[in-house]
Amino acid sequence: MRFSVEGVEGIPEIANGDDLAAVIAGATELGDGDILVVTSKIVSKAEGRVVQAADREQAITDETVRVVAVREHEGGVTRIVENRQGIIGAAAGVDASNAPEGTVLLLPVDPDASARALATGLRALTGARVGVILSDTLGRPWREGQTDIAIGAAGVYVFEDLRGQTDASGKALAVTMPCVADELAGAGELVKGKSSGVPVAVVRGLGRYVGDLDLPGARSIQRPAERDLFRQGADEAYDDGYRAGFDEAQAEGPLAE
Amino acid sequence: MRFSVEGVEGIPEIANGDDLAAVIAGATELGDGDILVVTSKIVSKAEGRVVQAADREQAITDETVRVVAVREHEGGVTRIVENRQGIIGAAAGVDASNAPEGTVLLLPVDPDASARALATGLRALTGARVGVILSDTLGRPWREGQTDIAIGAAGVYVFEDLRGQTDASGKALAVTMPCVADELAGAGELVKGKSSGVPVAVVRGLGRYVGDLDLPGARSIQRPAERDLFRQGADEAYDDGYRAGFDEAQAEGPLAE
Repeated sequence: MRFSVEGVEGIPEIANGDDLAAVIAGATELGDGDILVVTSKIVSKAEGRVVQAADREQAITDETVRVVAVREHEGGVTRIVENRQGIIGAAAGVDASNAPEGTVLLLPVDPDASARALATGLRALTGARVGVILSDTLGRPWREGQTDIAIGAAGVYVFEDLRGQTDASGKALAVTMPCVADELAGAGELVKGKSSGVPVAVVRGLGRYVGDLDLPGARSIQRPAERDLFRQGADEAYDDGYRAGFDEAQAEGPLAE
Repeated sequence: MRFSVEGVEGIPEIANGDDLAAVIAGATELGDGDILVVTSKIVSKAEGRVVQAADREQAITDETVRVVAVREHEGGVTRIVENRQGIIGAAAGVDASNAPEGTVLLLPVDPDASARALATGLRALTGARVGVILSDTLGRPWREGQTDIAIGAAGVYVFEDLRGQTDASGKALAVTMPCVADELAGAGELVKGKSSGVPVAVVRGLGRYVGDLDLPGARSIQRPAERDLFRQGADEAYDDGYRAGFDEAQAEGPLAE
């Protein structure tokens, strides 16, 4: 069992309206079972998801569906939010790095739809049954640093569903469901890097994860808040509890004595 | 820029006291810059970190330093805890899958030390400057499924520190610090799988992440609780706040009217 990950060289700066499928198909040879890991930033650029940098804080607010946690620090305020795409992360995916001067990039409106359009285009242009993952760089609770994860996917199984299968000693793997889409996105990051200007990687040798274009996308990775033990920051939850407890005790009044 | 990830075939079932470095060096050819991603489970077996399965719940309690979140559900109780190794996850790393019948495996006592011993042994046996990552499979907040992450590391840069560097357009990458160790662990999972009985992967072509054996290990990835916005489950934080608010209002007594 073996696979390779290669950065695709020679992708030019992408502008609004560019045909990404044509650009990528022209830059590398693709075969059946290849998986493209595409930095979502170039999809944002192709889709014109750019706003003036002066509006960055407003852009974050506009992209926010739900505030999860906020912390003030020396450098300003960190806002962990759920964005329109359902992804929880800092700054709602609004990013100034690698954006044209004076602007910030927003995430694609519907990353799974963008991935599907790209996979459809690539399959049509090359005749190869490829999968597409759109990646973004996110921090995480509990662990320092960031990893690239899948924010969009098409033609790829985002999970390897092992539930019901057995381990090497025959025991059932009850809850094991590796998120291969996130692992593929992270593998792609290792060759794309942040400062290299290489926005696309090709993964070869993992064709068993490639499937039909109507497979569930990366949105299916997102855990609904009601099932999430960490749906709110600890400080925010504490403060909500404090107010509720305080109000309850006051409502009980002298009877509480 | 290109790398490959290959599952190492032919590793036998590991038992207490086995010399893992000798086993791995005998199973694959290693060269300078190779990185071994080793399932921590076989390190646990070599180190005899096995307890009787009847003690599973007690084992979880014993391995727990701090309870982060608890939720009851149909199948039992999920306990998200910080374990002795400082890792936050379900069941403190106590695992029944791929463990000898009637037993559960605990994580290595000090995964970074285990990784260092393995890397030292492999370098001595092969003459190759290799890095070692010990991986484990963990769930995460906000996202379904699991990914493999690095719980131990030696001879590998666990972060690619880009702070102070610039992006392709010349802007400073202020906070960007990809956790390459976690991304490497995830890449390894894609060939090791859960049911294949392949516990070791070799990553070739990323020698730039290989360094001295005294580099910071995977423990440096763990974010201290006091700096973590999600150091406690939302329900637990709410309950703590509720009690504090209730007590405060009661202490204020009639004056609060």
